[in-house]
Amino acid sequence: MSHPDRRDRLRTVLRAAGLDALLVTDLLDVRYLTGFTGSNAAAVIAAEPAGDLLCTDGRYRIQAGEQCPDLEIVIDRPSAPAAAGRVPAGATLGYDSAVLTVDGLAAVRDATPGRRLRRAPGLVGGLRAVKDAAEVDAVGRACALADTALRDLVEAGGLAPGRTEREVALDLEDRMRRLGATGPSFETILAAGANSAVPHHRPTDTPLRRGDLVKIDFGATLDGYHSDTTRTFCLGTAADWQRELHALVDAAAAAGRAALADGVAVTAADAAARDVITDAGRGADFPHGLGHGIGLAVHEAPWLTWTGNGTVAAGQLVTVEPGVYLDGRGGVRIEDVLHVVAGGPAVALTALPRELLEV
Amino acid sequence: MSHPDRRDRLRTVLRAAGLDALLVTDLLDVRYLTGFTGSNAAAVIAAEPAGDLLCTDGRYRIQAGEQCPDLEIVIDRPSAPAAAGRVPAGATLGYDSAVLTVDGLAAVRDATPGRRLRRAPGLVGGLRAVKDAAEVDAVGRACALADTALRDLVEAGGLAPGRTEREVALDLEDRMRRLGATGPSFETILAAGANSAVPHHRPTDTPLRRGDLVKIDFGATLDGYHSDTTRTFCLGTAADWQRELHALVDAAAAAGRAALADGVAVTAADAAARDVITDAGRGADFPHGLGHGIGLAVHEAPWLTWTGNGTVAAGQLVTVEPGVYLDGRGGVRIEDVLHVVAGGPAVALTALPRELLEV
Repeated sequence: MSHPDRRDRLRTVLRAAGLDALLVTDLLDVRYLTGFTGSNAAAVIAAEPAGDLLCTDGRYRIQAGEQCPDLEIVIDRPSAPAAAGRVPAGATLGYDSAVLTVDGLAAVRDATPGRRLRRAPGLVGGLRAVKDAAEVDAVGRACALADTALRDLVEAGGLAPGRTEREVALDLEDRMRRLGATGPSFETILAAGANSAVPHHRPTDTPLRRGDLVKIDFGATLDGYHSDTTRTFCLGTAADWQRELHALVDAAAAAGRAALADGVAVTAADAAARDVITDAGRGADFPHGLGHGIGLAVHEAPWLTWTGNGTVAAGQLVTVEPGVYLDGRGGVRIEDVLHVVAGGPAVALTALPRELLEV
Repeated sequence: MSHPDRRDRLRTVLRAAGLDALLVTDLLDVRYLTGFTGSNAAAVIAAEPAGDLLCTDGRYRIQAGEQCPDLEIVIDRPSAPAAAGRVPAGATLGYDSAVLTVDGLAAVRDATPGRRLRRAPGLVGGLRAVKDAAEVDAVGRACALADTALRDLVEAGGLAPGRTEREVALDLEDRMRRLGATGPSFETILAAGANSAVPHHRPTDTPLRRGDLVKIDFGATLDGYHSDTTRTFCLGTAADWQRELHALVDAAAAAGRAALADGVAVTAADAAARDVITDAGRGADFPHGLGHGIGLAVHEAPWLTWTGNGTVAAGQLVTVEPGVYLDGRGGVRIEDVLHVVAGGPAVALTALPRELLEV
């Protein structure tokens, strides 16, 4: 979908919400609606097409003109109040209250005498949660690239005892870059042995040892879109407890994937996987939600958690990533990216085998 | 300075501001005060030492205990209201209004009946702007690592005609990682030929060509601290206009560095460099501020701009990075990191030669 088409979709939302315009201050929202990729910007999208504008600073004058030939460009800063000040007197201007800071709102208020400001959180996020074909393609290519990088690493003997967590993480990130990724989607989590029991472990100089569980949570950024995959390996033949732990998480992940369907409550999707783990007596060892949306941000709406709101919808891309972590021993997480489609099971964009691989 | 010492410094600030406690929601502020490095947290630092706590979620239970053995750890989310809700009734609680979102403040308000909430922007940022010895050492090591990476790249013939901007940027980032960096401080700006006139250009598949100006703005992250350096090369013998442009920016950078001293207004430091460029008739082609603080964030207080507030102070680490950009032809930026010290000229932590290098 083109950027003008996305702005037109937003106009429908604005009119339904009774807003004359929306001040867009989240940079990924700005990118989604305009194509602009600089590090400072705000946009105004009006309910009637004539009033759209992008505001950035002088560093990005050339880039803004190239990326947004169809938009009025304003060079001024700070960008949010400068953009808001261009909205006509008398207008009702929405702003994303989940993004704008308290001081940011005060500055916008000072710049908009005679306009009505109204909280309007998540309007663009709601559009972004449902992906168009080009976005599904972009995330799919990022996932395939990441798959290839990890497969190549394993085939090259990269998961060898004696290499450190940090060495293996760098090796994997290098492979993604050489395959064309802009970079990793986030700091690679590479956790061996007891460290695998730390859900968000940072790679250290700990060497991999025979008998370790090795948990790898990683992703590639490609054309601004992200992938996010986790696999857990065993170095050598798995012990019974490792095999059982992996089988439990694998069953929970399968249940979570199977639960994804248009209209299912996010809490129900989370529960489908969580119940498998709770029934095995391990509920307390799964301390995070089931998954999250993924796209221009590696973590974005919808949020599949036990406290979440709303439903899963066709067109969304979400991760399913249950994990069970045994303090001091080790942990397993299995994570895939899925495309929710109408009238059928969700389609995985990540294609690495999910069984416990003994390397 | 230890994390408890930093919290004690903050207590002095809190008492002077009439606050019983501060809700800390910026993750780098949390890291600075507690050592915690996870991706979700809030802290409360009390004017009296007994009330400090760190709140995070279940993914980080083990890590929080290891990184903050001297702090009360609360596992709950969302972390900001959960942390704020632990402050005793009747207390006056400050929050960073430049960080907390409008919705975030509403959630904190709901969680703190009977407490007084008060805007308190930038209190921790003010402490962070003045570095302690370990921080100067960390940034210095990051700068030295980045210096080595670029020097090695040039000596290895990495700036060769025919290589693309993207290839050279990846090469430089790889070298930083192999030298021990966690990663680049930010997406490397590598801009050849006319692209060098775009202040924040993203590397493309454009090949480097003989006669190009090549602008490289890059940094290394090491132990959570950052470097930030820019050098502009010429591929082959420079044309007169390239040599003159480089000499102008070099003179402006020297003036900016010389102006850095304890107590100088940030606007005066900016003007010292800007006047050199304006006097040469190029003021409109220097569309950004002179520099910024650097530390746990690659861009942080103080901000050396023509609209900034406050003064430069001894102990700060700041960049000086004037640039002049000629649309369609090319641009030059020269950037160093400097340590402002009392009673003497600022000390550069970046040591690459600044003259125009023809490679």
